[in-house]
Amino acid sequence: MSRLACFGAGRIGQIHALNAARLPDVSLVAIADPIDSPARAQLCAATGAQLRATQDIFDDPDIDGVIIASSTDSHVDLLRLAAQTGKAVFCEKPISLDFALSEQVTQAVEASGIRCMMGFQRRYDASFRALRERIASGEAGRLEQLSMWSRDPAPPPRAYVERSGGMFRDSSIHDADMVRYMMGEEIATVYAVGACLISEEIGAAGDIDSLMITMTTVSGRQAQITGCRRGPMGFDQRLEALCSHEVLSIANQPQHHMVVSTRSGALSAPPEAYFLERFAQAYRDEMVDFVAMIRDAHVPLAGIRDGFEAQRLVEAAIRSMCEGRAVDLRQPQLEEV
Amino acid sequence: MSRLACFGAGRIGQIHALNAARLPDVSLVAIADPIDSPARAQLCAATGAQLRATQDIFDDPDIDGVIIASSTDSHVDLLRLAAQTGKAVFCEKPISLDFALSEQVTQAVEASGIRCMMGFQRRYDASFRALRERIASGEAGRLEQLSMWSRDPAPPPRAYVERSGGMFRDSSIHDADMVRYMMGEEIATVYAVGACLISEEIGAAGDIDSLMITMTTVSGRQAQITGCRRGPMGFDQRLEALCSHEVLSIANQPQHHMVVSTRSGALSAPPEAYFLERFAQAYRDEMVDFVAMIRDAHVPLAGIRDGFEAQRLVEAAIRSMCEGRAVDLRQPQLEEV
Amino acid sequence: MSRLACFGAGRIGQIHALNAARLPDVSLVAIADPIDSPARAQLCAATGAQLRATQDIFDDPDIDGVIIASSTDSHVDLLRLAAQTGKAVFCEKPISLDFALSEQVTQAVEASGIRCMMGFQRRYDASFRALRERIASGEAGRLEQLSMWSRDPAPPPRAYVERSGGMFRDSSIHDADMVRYMMGEEIATVYAVGACLISEEIGAAGDIDSLMITMTTVSGRQAQITGCRRGPMGFDQRLEALCSHEVLSIANQPQHHMVVSTRSGALSAPPEAYFLERFAQAYRDEMVDFVAMIRDAHVPLAGIRDGFEAQRLVEAAIRSMCEGRAVDLRQPQLEEV
Amino acid sequence: MSRLACFGAGRIGQIHALNAARLPDVSLVAIADPIDSPARAQLCAATGAQLRATQDIFDDPDIDGVIIASSTDSHVDLLRLAAQTGKAVFCEKPISLDFALSEQVTQAVEASGIRCMMGFQRRYDASFRALRERIASGEAGRLEQLSMWSRDPAPPPRAYVERSGGMFRDSSIHDADMVRYMMGEEIATVYAVGACLISEEIGAAGDIDSLMITMTTVSGRQAQITGCRRGPMGFDQRLEALCSHEVLSIANQPQHHMVVSTRSGALSAPPEAYFLERFAQAYRDEMVDFVAMIRDAHVPLAGIRDGFEAQRLVEAAIRSMCEGRAVDLRQPQLEEV
Repeated sequence: MSRLACFGAGRIGQIHALNAARLPDVSLVAIADPIDSPARAQLCAATGAQLRATQDIFDDPDIDGVIIASSTDSHVDLLRLAAQTGKAVFCEKPISLDFALSEQVTQAVEASGIRCMMGFQRRYDASFRALRERIASGEAGRLEQLSMWSRDPAPPPRAYVERSGGMFRDSSIHDADMVRYMMGEEIATVYAVGACLISEEIGAAGDIDSLMITMTTVSGRQAQITGCRRGPMGFDQRLEALCSHEVLSIANQPQHHMVVSTRSGALSAPPEAYFLERFAQAYRDEMVDFVAMIRDAHVPLAGIRDGFEAQRLVEAAIRSMCEGRAVDLRQPQLEEV
Repeated sequence: MSRLACFGAGRIGQIHALNAARLPDVSLVAIADPIDSPARAQLCAATGAQLRATQDIFDDPDIDGVIIASSTDSHVDLLRLAAQTGKAVFCEKPISLDFALSEQVTQAVEASGIRCMMGFQRRYDASFRALRERIASGEAGRLEQLSMWSRDPAPPPRAYVERSGGMFRDSSIHDADMVRYMMGEEIATVYAVGACLISEEIGAAGDIDSLMITMTTVSGRQAQITGCRRGPMGFDQRLEALCSHEVLSIANQPQHHMVVSTRSGALSAPPEAYFLERFAQAYRDEMVDFVAMIRDAHVPLAGIRDGFEAQRLVEAAIRSMCEGRAVDLRQPQLEEV
Repeated sequence: MSRLACFGAGRIGQIHALNAARLPDVSLVAIADPIDSPARAQLCAATGAQLRATQDIFDDPDIDGVIIASSTDSHVDLLRLAAQTGKAVFCEKPISLDFALSEQVTQAVEASGIRCMMGFQRRYDASFRALRERIASGEAGRLEQLSMWSRDPAPPPRAYVERSGGMFRDSSIHDADMVRYMMGEEIATVYAVGACLISEEIGAAGDIDSLMITMTTVSGRQAQITGCRRGPMGFDQRLEALCSHEVLSIANQPQHHMVVSTRSGALSAPPEAYFLERFAQAYRDEMVDFVAMIRDAHVPLAGIRDGFEAQRLVEAAIRSMCEGRAVDLRQPQLEEV
Repeated sequence: MSRLACFGAGRIGQIHALNAARLPDVSLVAIADPIDSPARAQLCAATGAQLRATQDIFDDPDIDGVIIASSTDSHVDLLRLAAQTGKAVFCEKPISLDFALSEQVTQAVEASGIRCMMGFQRRYDASFRALRERIASGEAGRLEQLSMWSRDPAPPPRAYVERSGGMFRDSSIHDADMVRYMMGEEIATVYAVGACLISEEIGAAGDIDSLMITMTTVSGRQAQITGCRRGPMGFDQRLEALCSHEVLSIANQPQHHMVVSTRSGALSAPPEAYFLERFAQAYRDEMVDFVAMIRDAHVPLAGIRDGFEAQRLVEAAIRSMCEGRAVDLRQPQLEEV
């Protein structure tokens, strides 16, 4: 029996806590969240977990692992506490909006020897995983050009934008992680353009809503990310990989499989509404892997180093956009190409 | 809190018991199964239900509803006990392989006034439901021609075939129900052809493995069912509805959304392997509706009368195939056209 | 240089005449059409052919082959003249609306030894041909269940219906031919239902507009045709073949390849508007094969016997519908099953 | 009757000459090609055109328009002769591999007042045209992010590469034109990466085989081109336009419409083999527009200025790749951003 605690009873905390509680031979024993909300109480009731204080959780020797699904600004302290107390960790991205802090805590976690898994759920999705495995198997040949799209159904509210760290750090970090996961090689150069094309509110908050990033790997292979805070078809997350023998692509997952055909054409169903629906199974599989990491020292698909490296890419992309030039990541301090 | 019992701890009993146990404000209190198997013990453990005797369950006034997921030959007795003790019932198809018995117990259940829902899970699938609702909304216009395909991944073992009642009763009954559900009108004529084309074992068991059924409704609209015990692409269950304004079709649900493109063409993923995977969500939604029937007198998508009428269609189809002629269902005793 | 003549300057005559005239080493030397229309004059001008009388064409020893694309009631006389004068023939379907006459002229043509090709253009379509070849190659395994849909964009005018011979003879004959072509085995039983569901005009003309036909072959394999005089998506002609190793299907050919995605779903282009657009290339390839038949004694994909046998099937379907019973084609006089 | 001449009897000259000769009220009277080949003789025979000398064609006052489909290095002289003699021109891209020469001759042609159409056939393709028109209609909303892929079936031979001007000038010019056509606004910045990933021969010839280009327009909208000299699925030319209300995408055109489904998935047909097959209809429609330009002063979809501007983009892309930085096209001399 693995005993877990969950920090955060918000949207993503609920997902992870419920998924963990349903697993065989797993007990979610504690939930911590500073805000006294109905959601917090309901989550305790539904999972059978007790509401407990942070320090109390880390002091409890019977707790094997902690899920960090609280607000971003709490991640660093919780990761440090886990490192100090030797708890296995599942941590939602990002590590911190402050890149220097991210680097410090990544090193601290690695130095501590605790097991730490990052919440890049897309790596656990059946389609993305199938594509990664097809490349890994050699069947597709070498991946040469990667293209990705990431579009949210609608722009987030201004309050969210203001505390999000900006579109690159908040949204493109998932795509940056996917580029690293698929390319299997470190990135050499990053070039990014960004603009505020769709939402005046986002512009007023000093952020962009539309971006394109081009990357090359050390061996010269190429990748691009296209992102937008608004997708006319809803949540739109696709990928295409040109390999030497095959082109692999991932389409959106439709809400159902009915097609309506008229003289206007054939209308198939729109994609799953948003990431919670699209990645419902990936979130479940991710938690299974977290428990396997705790029990069997199983290596998860993403560790804290992956969280840090994805951030490093988006920081370089931000610098590229701001300075209007390509950034070379092979240099120690993100020097110019 | 609704208190339920489940009869049967086999494959389909496990599905329903686990789905019921996970629902909020539902308690699965009892499981009954005459076979002392590890599966039975595990199901009790996983759901927190007690193993109890049949009569004990029906005698317990605190049990609100029973799930009949036991072997087909036990359905009639359990339905009668439910009718006598006033329990709400969820019953897997078929009512009985003996058509006369089915009719008697259907009448008994209706006379008792208990609420009874039949397990036609396809009615609860998002795609089939979307299609039904589009027709019901009037947007598609009148449904004029309906085509359905039903193919299993592989022929069942001979032992299964021998106790199944034959392909029409075992498999086509789901399609027959879907025809009634979609057409929304009683069937007037049935014509069926069947052959043993793919499996010598099935032929040796006296059954067919390939069939086509053509039906007309009282107002002259047309429907056809194509069935096969073996689908080269796996589980293959599609439907197309020609309506006066639209053609509505339901494609298979792929296992994932990666496409592999080469000079040979573009290869998309095969369908979900079998009905448990394909209809996983439908089984969950079905159990939600069962609880809503118990609590709120909500009318489920399929009642015992639907179970009986679907059987009536497949009995007519069997007669048509055996006699090589169309059968007219408008006559009291299935007379010739 | 092959020298050809074309009978008929209407819609289908124009297609064949223009296609023939464009071929290398082919000269369309004569056109015959009793109606003095601008279309006839234009066709002569565009092809460089001379307007000539029927007998004059058959008497001309320099003419190698004739294209019969005139009105249906003229086919029998023209076929007989061709048989008498030894001209190679391309003949549009049907041979005659009078089935007995069709049989007589088929025998006369065969007795004469002339080469005669029937205009079943669907056999020449890239998709239908690819499917036929895949079955013939053995790769797909044995074809066991065949389903076909044939829907026109809109009901024809009443005047057309009245002289068409009815929906079975006018439209389903193409599908009947395709069933024979794909199954590669003679048909044993035919069962058909038909109704007037969409057009009061068609009903007033004594015809049906919606039909389903079920057929079995001598070895027990199964086929079905679904037809309607109105397709909500436009011209709708699809086919699916369940084979022992593969399911082969033919989708409609879209007008273009742009897809529009919104929150309502992804809208792809409607099918080619009607058979002239859909089968434009098949008509060209058919004419190439006609010339190859003349020059090289190449056997075309459909001969006059195929035209007759397809008619035999639709005559049986009509009888089945009228008498409400299956018809057995293995008996000499279409006796009851 | 419009009287035309065609320069060049090679692959693309044959396409244009045959398409022109088939048009009503058009006569292809002359062909010029310095190489005495069987292809040249066959083309004269098939079109009825006479083989004539270049100067003779330009001196003939009865010739209304000339098609320049000869080798690239002859374009400038022929365009100048057309400008001097007042002939309408259809010119294949590029104007010249020498960008300064291209600019001079573009100005000369514009100064002369002759009508001049550039051979960007993709603008005439039904899918690309439908997409352009949907944007132009306003229905899709503003185009914000454009993605394009351009992949040849296989790398060209080294000899071709060496005289091609390189991948940007030879291949990406079509994509650059499409970006301008779709965005409808001049490009502000260009950033390109290129590498030799797939063909050692291409590398030995000093060229690249894989590239990505990112562009922004003056108003900040974004576009990207992905190109490769080898497409595993064959000829691969797709486009996606994120607009404010809709996502518009263009899929490849399959060779046929048969799908093969097995347990491995559903295999649809590969794209048309190469550009001649894919754009066969676009080449026909282009020639129709050329004749309309001559007769009715109809403005074609692409003029010589479009040819020049597309070259300007690819020259900037080359500079960007070579210098590892973004290039600002708003500055008079392609200065740094």
